[in-house]
Amino acid sequence: MPNPTKSYTVAILGATGLVGGKIIEILQERAFPITELRPLASERSLGSSIMFNQKAWPVQLAEQQAFEGVDIVLASAGAMVSQSLVPCAVKQGAIVIDNTSFYRMHADVPLVVAGVNDADLAGHKGIIANPNCSTAQLMPVLKSLHALGGLKRIVVSTYQSVSGAGKKGLDELRASTQAHLNSTVHTPCTFQRPIGFNLIPHIDQFLSDPDDPIWGEACGYTKEEAKLIVETRKILHLPQLAISATAVRVPVQVGHSESVAIEFERPVSPQSAIDALRHTPDVVVAEATNDYHTPLEGQDTDPVYVSRIRPDLAAPAGMGLCLWVVSDNLRIGAALNAVRLAESLINLGLV
Amino acid sequence: MPNPTKSYTVAILGATGLVGGKIIEILQERAFPITELRPLASERSLGSSIMFNQKAWPVQLAEQQAFEGVDIVLASAGAMVSQSLVPCAVKQGAIVIDNTSFYRMHADVPLVVAGVNDADLAGHKGIIANPNCSTAQLMPVLKSLHALGGLKRIVVSTYQSVSGAGKKGLDELRASTQAHLNSTVHTPCTFQRPIGFNLIPHIDQFLSDPDDPIWGEACGYTKEEAKLIVETRKILHLPQLAISATAVRVPVQVGHSESVAIEFERPVSPQSAIDALRHTPDVVVAEATNDYHTPLEGQDTDPVYVSRIRPDLAAPAGMGLCLWVVSDNLRIGAALNAVRLAESLINLGLV
Repeated sequence: MPNPTKSYTVAILGATGLVGGKIIEILQERAFPITELRPLASERSLGSSIMFNQKAWPVQLAEQQAFEGVDIVLASAGAMVSQSLVPCAVKQGAIVIDNTSFYRMHADVPLVVAGVNDADLAGHKGIIANPNCSTAQLMPVLKSLHALGGLKRIVVSTYQSVSGAGKKGLDELRASTQAHLNSTVHTPCTFQRPIGFNLIPHIDQFLSDPDDPIWGEACGYTKEEAKLIVETRKILHLPQLAISATAVRVPVQVGHSESVAIEFERPVSPQSAIDALRHTPDVVVAEATNDYHTPLEGQDTDPVYVSRIRPDLAAPAGMGLCLWVVSDNLRIGAALNAVRLAESLINLGLV
Repeated sequence: MPNPTKSYTVAILGATGLVGGKIIEILQERAFPITELRPLASERSLGSSIMFNQKAWPVQLAEQQAFEGVDIVLASAGAMVSQSLVPCAVKQGAIVIDNTSFYRMHADVPLVVAGVNDADLAGHKGIIANPNCSTAQLMPVLKSLHALGGLKRIVVSTYQSVSGAGKKGLDELRASTQAHLNSTVHTPCTFQRPIGFNLIPHIDQFLSDPDDPIWGEACGYTKEEAKLIVETRKILHLPQLAISATAVRVPVQVGHSESVAIEFERPVSPQSAIDALRHTPDVVVAEATNDYHTPLEGQDTDPVYVSRIRPDLAAPAGMGLCLWVVSDNLRIGAALNAVRLAESLINLGLV
C-alpha cells in the first residue's frame, strides 16, 4: 500500500474510456492517496463529471495546460494522445504511467509489470510504460517459471476479449451477436469482420516493413502479436528469448485467455511448476489436472489464473509444459497494473 | 465421383442428428448412387421421415436387424452406439464408415481422410474410421507441408465451435448467449460452464490413467486433445511425431479454427509453404500476408482455409512456420469426409 503520509494530484488522461473508468474504480478500491483527481478527456465529454471520494470532479479538456500541478498522470487515451500530451506533462513535473503502446519500446522508458520488475522503475525519466494486456498477464507466470527452469522457447496463442478494444468493442459484440440471433445484418465497424459468433485472427495492424528496427523481425505478424514478443523480452530482460504469438479476437466481453507452450533449459515437471506458481504473487493456480478457469469466472477479479499445466508432448520429454492462462484484461492487463505502478513509485520514493 | 454403373443401399446411423443430417445433404449434393436410403435413429425419432431424391424415407429403429441388405453404413450416433451396432452391420456384409471415436485407434481399422491417405482403405476389414473434426481439417495441410520440409514438431491450439457437440451444443450456445444479453441465468447442461461469451478449455473427458496403452502418454490432457495427437500420427504414418494440442470450446456456431506452430526438419519459407498449399487439393490458401479467414466465412463450404503463414519466431531461424487453419467442422471434419470415403471405396472397387 502507498505511504499514507503524502497525498497526490492525479490526472486521468482518457477518464471517460473503459480503462480510464476502471482506473478510477481501482484508485477508489485501493484508497489511493489523492488530494485532487483531474479527469481529462476530449471535448465531447466536457460538461460531465466523475464521482470519486464522494465528490464530483468535472471532466477537463485533455490539453497541454491541463497538467499544471499534477504529480501523477495515468494515461489511457490512445497512442496518438500520449505521443502529443505525455511530454508536456513530464515537462511540467508530472510522472506519467502510460497505458498506450507509444513509449513502451523506447530505450529510456521502463516497461513494468508491478510485482515482476518494479526495480526497473528506478531508472525512469518521467514516463513509465504499462505493457499490453496480453503481455501483462503472462509476466508473473513466465518470471516464476523462468526462475524454475529457464525459458528456452515459448509459443502463445491468445483468445482476446472485445473489451481490449474499449467500450466500442463491447458495443459491437453485443450488436453483432444480437443481429446474428435475429438473422439481421450488422456491419462491423470496430472490428474487421463480424465478431458475434466468430473469431478474428487480426488485432492491431499488420506489420510489413522488414527493415523496421523494432518490428522488422515480426514482419507478417500483427502488431498485437509483435507487442507480446518484444514486450516480454524487455520486461523479463531476455532480449534473445525465442517466442512467437498468434493473437485472436474472440466473442468474449472481458477476460483474455492464452494457450502457452513452453520449453525449458532444464527439466520441469508439472508438479514443480504448480508448486512454483502457488508461491507466485498475483497468480492463482489450479492444482487438480481437471480443474481450470474460464474468462467469465475471472471477470472483475485481480489474479492471473493458471491451469491445464501438463507436459508439452511436442517438446523433448520432461522439458516442456503447456498451460492455460486467464485474466481480466481491464485489470491486471491495464488499470490495476497502472495503479499498482503508481503505488510502487510512492513506495520506492520515486514520486 | 463414384462409378455410376452401380447403386447402393446406404444406412445412415444417427440420421436425425446434426452430422447425420449433413451427411444426407451431402449425399444429395454429390449425387451419390443410392437405391435405398435407410435412416436409422433411436426410438424418439420413429414416425418421422427423411426427404432424399424427392422421396420420403421413414426413419427406422437403429438395432441389429436394421442392417440387412445394407451395402454401406455411415455412422454418427455416438461411440456407444457404434460399439454395439457396427459389428452387427459388418457381420451382415456392410462396410461401415464410422464417424465416432470408438474404432479409430484399433490396429485393424483404417483411419482415413479422403485425399490424404485413401490408400489405407485397401486393408479394411469392414470398418473405416473417420477422424475427429479437429484432426481432419489439419491433415491435408500437414501432409503437404510434411512433403515440403519434414514435420519435426507441432503445437496446436484449437478454437472449436459448439456444433462439435451436435444440435444440443448449438441450442445451448443460443440459450446461454440470450440469457447473458438479457441478464438472466442459464444453467449449462451440454457444456461444463456457460458458453455464451465465454471459453471452455475442456472438450471430452480428462485422461487420468498413465498406464493406458493408447492414452497414457497424454495423461492430464483432455481426450479431445489426445485424439488430435494420436490420430494425426496414425493418418500421416508418423508414429513418433512430436505434437501437442490444447482444445478450447469457443462461442462460435459452426467452424473450427486452429493456431498451429510447426518446426520442420529442413528450412521452409512462408512463400514455399504458400506455393505447396496452393497445389494441395481441398485447401484454399490466403496468399497475402494480411489476408485471413474466419469460421463464419467458412461455414457451409468444403475447403480447409489456411492463412497467416509466417515464420515461427520461437523456432530456429527459417525452420518454423505459424499458421491459422479454418474449416467447417460438420463438413470436412465429419459428413463430407464420410461421404468422400464412401466414394473412394467405390472408386477403389472396395465395396
